[in-house]
Amino acid sequence: MRIFGIDPGLQKTGWGVIDVTGNRLQHIAHGVIKTDAKVETAARLRHLFVEITKMIELWKPTHAAIEETFVNKNPASALKLGLARGVVMMAPSHYGLDVAEYPANLVKKSVVGAGHAEKEQVQMMIKILLQGVEATSDAADALAVAICHAHHGATKMKIGGVMAGAAR
Amino acid sequence: MRIFGIDPGLQKTGWGVIDVTGNRLQHIAHGVIKTDAKVETAARLRHLFVEITKMIELWKPTHAAIEETFVNKNPASALKLGLARGVVMMAPSHYGLDVAEYPANLVKKSVVGAGHAEKEQVQMMIKILLQGVEATSDAADALAVAICHAHHGATKMKIGGVMAGAAR
Repeated sequence: MRIFGIDPGLQKTGWGVIDVTGNRLQHIAHGVIKTDAKVETAARLRHLFVEITKMIELWKPTHAAIEETFVNKNPASALKLGLARGVVMMAPSHYGLDVAEYPANLVKKSVVGAGHAEKEQVQMMIKILLQGVEATSDAADALAVAICHAHHGATKMKIGGVMAGAAR
Repeated sequence: MRIFGIDPGLQKTGWGVIDVTGNRLQHIAHGVIKTDAKVETAARLRHLFVEITKMIELWKPTHAAIEETFVNKNPASALKLGLARGVVMMAPSHYGLDVAEYPANLVKKSVVGAGHAEKEQVQMMIKILLQGVEATSDAADALAVAICHAHHGATKMKIGGVMAGAAR
């Protein structure tokens, strides 16, 4: 399976694509989409949507995953983050993909082995797990959520399959 | 000009279309898009995007306006509202329209004459201002933001024009 991971943000949205064959993870691509703070919000959101859609059409993932956003104590920041998150999680769905959501601590645990980790630790582990890939922090977080889905999505699918079988 | 007003929400998004000729307001259409709470969030957001896009393509507005969201004290609710708001404000932008934002109290003042008003008062004034239109609360709020843009958007455009002229 090919997984598209997303780390959403209005200013910067990281994305990353990995292939998973059995236990083998292979890095395919990653990047960061930036928006211009001087432009009106709707246009910034449109830019995120257009660019994410382009990447999905280019890399043709079979699965998508996004980090469950850390809910800031400040409601105004939470709303702003929500704007970007809504748009970038809608894009894979618009393309026909299910979008799995994972809590931030599970994502970190999947790559670093602990629920709390510094950004640099995530970047370092991405480099180790994905054949020396050097990704900026936002793209590394997106690759991390893709790896998290590689570990947990497969399990979920198996459970889903067994349960669907049992229900028949 | 033809204005598309939006009152965003994940569960229910109201929309309304009015035509403005000089001081004359004419109701064109309105409705509410509902999403299924049992469906995953990304799919609900996609439904909002698809339906809003359909309405824009059907009614061909020349302007779009959205209420500036009331920022809830609860960051989790603010984030959730942000998801829907991001998607529905991106849709008109994707169609090539600017999206004007107005604070809730200015929207209410435009239709009721006061910054604080009950939902029923907004519905009643919509009925009076728009030739007897009976709209549910979400659609009435969307029509109200369109009316607000009819009043303030034109002024803004004039000021913008003058300032753009002065800058030359």
